[in-house]
Amino acid sequence: MTETSALQAERNRLDAPVDALTRLFFIFGSPIAHVRAPVVWSTLMKRYGVNAVMLPADAAPAQFEHAMEGVKSIANVDGLIFTMPHKIAAMKHADALTERARRVGSINLLRRGPDGTWEGDNVDGAGFVAGLRADSVTLEGSNVYVHGCGGVGQSIGWSLAMEGVASLTLFDLDWQRAATLARSIAEQSHVSIRVGAPDMSTIDLAVNASPVGLNADDPLPFSVDDSPHHAVVADVIMEPRTTRLLAAAHSRGLKVHHGRNMMNFGMPIAASFFGLPESFDWNGAAVQK
Amino acid sequence: MTETSALQAERNRLDAPVDALTRLFFIFGSPIAHVRAPVVWSTLMKRYGVNAVMLPADAAPAQFEHAMEGVKSIANVDGLIFTMPHKIAAMKHADALTERARRVGSINLLRRGPDGTWEGDNVDGAGFVAGLRADSVTLEGSNVYVHGCGGVGQSIGWSLAMEGVASLTLFDLDWQRAATLARSIAEQSHVSIRVGAPDMSTIDLAVNASPVGLNADDPLPFSVDDSPHHAVVADVIMEPRTTRLLAAAHSRGLKVHHGRNMMNFGMPIAASFFGLPESFDWNGAAVQK
Repeated sequence: MTETSALQAERNRLDAPVDALTRLFFIFGSPIAHVRAPVVWSTLMKRYGVNAVMLPADAAPAQFEHAMEGVKSIANVDGLIFTMPHKIAAMKHADALTERARRVGSINLLRRGPDGTWEGDNVDGAGFVAGLRADSVTLEGSNVYVHGCGGVGQSIGWSLAMEGVASLTLFDLDWQRAATLARSIAEQSHVSIRVGAPDMSTIDLAVNASPVGLNADDPLPFSVDDSPHHAVVADVIMEPRTTRLLAAAHSRGLKVHHGRNMMNFGMPIAASFFGLPESFDWNGAAVQK
Repeated sequence: MTETSALQAERNRLDAPVDALTRLFFIFGSPIAHVRAPVVWSTLMKRYGVNAVMLPADAAPAQFEHAMEGVKSIANVDGLIFTMPHKIAAMKHADALTERARRVGSINLLRRGPDGTWEGDNVDGAGFVAGLRADSVTLEGSNVYVHGCGGVGQSIGWSLAMEGVASLTLFDLDWQRAATLARSIAEQSHVSIRVGAPDMSTIDLAVNASPVGLNADDPLPFSVDDSPHHAVVADVIMEPRTTRLLAAAHSRGLKVHHGRNMMNFGMPIAASFFGLPESFDWNGAAVQK
């Protein structure tokens, strides 16, 4: 019996969660306590016989640079996921970027290549769009509002612009951030773009891409009182599953689209980016709808 | 149901190995593939309901500084273990040292205190001595040979000197390293100390504290052909369990002491240092003898 197979036998006997050969993935966020990625990814890795875990990494912005240099220096770290507020800061840690990540200006994924360099991607928007499509939401010709133009809002804005929407209205508390995104999208697409708060009665799809709603006592990110009856209201917040915004939309009889869809439909794309088995059943029993 | 308890419920339903609240411990080593700490510690943490895992961190010496700064920057990292070759380099990452760690000049444990500072300890020697005692090896009045004066050899040398042995003979391929350890022990104990290869016929307890024997085709670290029949031969190498040295000693009818004892008897001391449950049954079913 080789050393490695002896260790494997001991691991199996003890049903240990990790061993010396376990490959490490981290999700960086701040706060981190609400993220579902460690549970969901690690469960699927175990179920599919991949000796890897997705670990929570609680790093405040001031600690992020050191933490990133550190985990990249550990040879058995294969990939990283970024959630708020690190998606933009993470970008400079990529040696190369996918086309969509370069366009968006932020990354939510970073993988180590065979040559040791790190490649960044951003699949938030692609996952969000895939979720809307699966939920039969029409995008072509729609008037869309994106509230919040941080990492996730940028990714969603870009992806929607590429899906044939009629107009995009972009809002951010930092007006400059919304304007920058608008200018950048306008340079590469023909979608009609406005910056600022919209006339909600003209909006077919309203998306909260801001962190407002993470805390139970947050105000509504925006009002849906004037939304037309056919409007769809989407939130990127995963926990709580039904935010105050979605509850308000639901009580008005509007169609709601939960934040978990973005992760559930982004995960197969991310898994493929990380080189994990394509058969990963992300939308099966392991994933809470 | 709070967000955290919802996450906990999902984790339980899926039997996930980690979740967003999991506390992280790392064992740093290079190579790392043979270390048993991830399996053994993580199993016990799980068994005792501690939401934590012990992860392998494969960091070459050139990457060690970055990797250390990084993991210390992650807020949910509570403690670190060091194995070869990092025990000496790790010391400068401690804000404070226990008395025995200061004496030895290397650490194998580092914990984050409530105030965010890091304290280092070295329990290799204490674990090794506890293992010998449990194996009924007499130390008082013995003539002891320690082969290898790196981190673990230093810790063992110091601990044996404090246990009333008659003489210590210290050897290292780097003669200066053995001489430095000898001088340092001589300043604080009255044990008789020699540096160099011993007359093995006078040695009651011979300890391999070098990495020689980790690989199947390594030579013997030293010969036991001239050892007296009552001699005990100990190895610090855990994997393979029976090194070529121990096999040679066994075939001569000498008493052998396996490397795993140092970890098995050091672990309760380490667990206590990390603030883990004192009831941890390190020497029960989870630990392979």
